[in-house]
Parts: sequence; C-alpha cells; structure tokens
Amino acid sequence: MDLSPETRLDTLIERDLTLGDAPGILWTPALADSPTPLILLGHPGDIGRMRPRLEARARAAAAQGFASVTLELPGTGARARIVALDEARAELRAAVLAGERPTEDVVDRLILPLVDQAAAEWRALVDALLELPGIGGPVAVSGGIVSLGVRLAATDPRIVAASLFAGSWVPAAILEEARTVTVPAHVLLQWDDEGNDRQQALDLFDALGSTEKTLQANLGGHTGVPSFAGDDAARFLARHLT
Amino acid sequence: MDLSPETRLDTLIERDLTLGDAPGILWTPALADSPTPLILLGHPGDIGRMRPRLEARARAAAAQGFASVTLELPGTGARARIVALDEARAELRAAVLAGERPTEDVVDRLILPLVDQAAAEWRALVDALLELPGIGGPVAVSGGIVSLGVRLAATDPRIVAASLFAGSWVPAAILEEARTVTVPAHVLLQWDDEGNDRQQALDLFDALGSTEKTLQANLGGHTGVPSFAGDDAARFLARHLT
Repeated sequence: MDLSPETRLDTLIERDLTLGDAPGILWTPALADSPTPLILLGHPGDIGRMRPRLEARARAAAAQGFASVTLELPGTGARARIVALDEARAELRAAVLAGERPTEDVVDRLILPLVDQAAAEWRALVDALLELPGIGGPVAVSGGIVSLGVRLAATDPRIVAASLFAGSWVPAAILEEARTVTVPAHVLLQWDDEGNDRQQALDLFDALGSTEKTLQANLGGHTGVPSFAGDDAARFLARHLT
Repeated sequence: MDLSPETRLDTLIERDLTLGDAPGILWTPALADSPTPLILLGHPGDIGRMRPRLEARARAAAAQGFASVTLELPGTGARARIVALDEARAELRAAVLAGERPTEDVVDRLILPLVDQAAAEWRALVDALLELPGIGGPVAVSGGIVSLGVRLAATDPRIVAASLFAGSWVPAAILEEARTVTVPAHVLLQWDDEGNDRQQALDLFDALGSTEKTLQANLGGHTGVPSFAGDDAARFLARHLT
C-alpha cells in the first residue's frame, strides 16, 4: 500500500492511497491521541464521483473518533474495466429499466466475481492499515454493495459490526453466506428502492445469523435515505466500536 | 376527568386520574416552565401491572420536556369486565397456544370494539388534558395496541406523530384505516414475536399513508425490545414534538 502525504481538512486528515491498481482514501481524526477504530466505507463504485459523500461519512465518523477508509471496486472508476462485469451490469440495468426481475444468472455473474476480488483487496487493505501506528481497530463495515459487506462480515474476524445497505441484488450464495454472519448487524432498507427487491432484502435480514440485528426500513427510493437513518446507523457503529 | 393531588418523584410529577370509570396516570416534568407536548402512552391492558414500565417511559419523556398520560383499556385492569372481549381474548390465546393462526373473526371481535371504545375515551382524555395550564400539545401516540394507535393517528388531528409497536393482531379494517394515516410514523417490530404475524406487521407498515415512515425490526420475541430501540423511538417523538 502506498500512502500520499497528509491533507488537513480542519478536523480530518485525508490521505489518498493505492493498493495494487486500486485507488483509495484514508481519513483519520485530526485530534486522535490513541489508535482508532476503523470503518470500511462501502460505495457502489467510482470513488471519484462518490468522494463528497464518502468524505461526509468519514467526517461524521471522525467526530466519534474513528478512522475511515475506502477503496475503488474492481472494474469501476479509474481502474481497468472488466469486460464480463460491464456486460453483466449492462444486462442487469436493462432488465430493471424494462421493469423485469434480473435473472439469478446475471446477478451471480455481476456480484460473485466482484465480491470475490473486492473482499480479498479489502482484507489486504485492513492488513496494511492495522500496521499504521494511528489505527488500532476494531473494524466495522459500513454500506456499499451489501453482498461485499456480508462476505467481509462473514469471513474477516477483525470485523466486529456490519452496517449494511440492502440496496443491491443479492446472489443466492450470499443469502446462504449471511447465515454464518455472527457480528451485530444494522440493515438499512429503502422501502421503495427501484433497483432492488424488497422481499430479497427482508430475506437477507432474516438469514443473518447475528444474535443482535436491526432492520431499519424507510419510505422512499434508493437515494432517499433520510438523514436521521444515517445518524441511527452511526450510533449503531459507535455502540460496537467503542 | 378527576385528578388526584400531585406526587413528586424527583424530576417527575405524578397524578392519578379517572375519566368515567377508567383510571389513568398523568406524568409531567417537574421543571417545565411552559406548556408541554403530550405523549399518549399505550399498553396492552392493566396499568396496575404495567405501572413501573409506564413510569420509566414517562420519566424518559419528561427528561425531554414532555408530559405523558395513560388510561386503562376497556374491560382490563380494575375496570368492569366485558364478557364478549374476555371470550374473544380467550379464543385468540387458545389459537396462538395451539400454534394456529387466529381467525379474522376473532381478531375483529376482540380488537374492533376495544378500539372503538378506547379511541373515544382517549380523545376525551386529550380534550380534558389540553384544558390544563401546563399541557399545550402537540400530541403523539406511543406504543400499546397498534390498532388503537392507528385509529387515533388516523382520526385525531391533534396527533402529529405515531410511534407504533406492531406486536398485536390487526383487523383487516384497521389495515385499510392505516392508509388514511398521514402523520410521521415509527413502527417497532420484534422479528420473532410469538403473539403476532410478521407479514401482517410488514403489510401494516406498507399500508400507512405517511410520507415519513420508518420500520425498525429487531431480533427477538415480543418482550425483547432492545433498549436502543426504545431510545430510537424516543428520538423519533422528540423530532416531531419539538
């Protein structure tokens, strides 16, 4: 992992990073005087476009004393395209635009290779970050592609809590994998999400093996998450990271 | 309405009351210096048995500057029994204990007359309380028989927010009435509630006509509502009463 020099944004220190060919961003609280917990900030792909929203989430996390990091997803943003993922993504979008349910096959072809590669990269990122003096863990996942959050929560023992956004299609294999998640989970669902299946989101919540789990569903479409729901998710993370 | 003399419980002033043959309890913040909003504290019946839990909820509300009131339900606690309700309640419990789904008929026979009578009584209670110098409104409903909360939210224009606990069977007529609720709603659901139907709770949330509505579902049975869920519901009420 390569880290760029620090940029000081009032209460936040920002550093761009690269891990292999993947760009990322690390935010740490400017005033932390001991190693901080770490939040893995998920996103739908293209961290250049998402940067203002990611920075706002990182700022809120820093106010609670937490570092945040994000990493570009395979085949998105400035990274080399992956033809098979682009094809599957185009097929899935065409189905949704036509008002049809995407086939399990196209969901599998898009999400499973993405999750396999991204999960390996995010684990390597956590390995590298926990070597830094200012970052001590524990680690939580927050938002982004829900199947990636499930995979990380299910397989990385350093992760102590998962704040998930049930806003993308989920392969059947990931629904099964959710049964092996045991850390506390907070699942956000937009009740009228146009790019998602409500029943599948409820099935995912039901499948999670966590003994503490909360579903919070709010009226509105994919991008209409109310600010109080973001605050509630932040409180969930604070309960488990401190 | 008759009000007993005040009892001062540190930060809380408690007064027993009677409205017709119904006993109730009014709690006001000891330190309020202007007329306060009012929360209608719902419960499953028998306020004698529920008193410690109701007082705890009233104490939390008073810390935010809100008065709280509760009233015994028709046919429960110290009030005269209502034979038809007792019979319907016994039938419903027998069905649940036998692992069967209660019929729509028995749910209607228990809930609809209870809601009709209780809603009229709670409206009269609000009429009387808003005459008191210390209580100014607005008014919110909080918990208790969910069908009563829906009825009050749908029909009493003084109510500005409804915090509902989807923990009891709901007649089809109340599901329809939920479509006419327009105030912000926060619906708490215990995911494994043994005395309730999960799908019916989801249908009720879906039916609510509110443009701001949140469903919060937590793992566990009817009595296992986690404390953070109570805090979230209190924050919802505070957002809409202040």
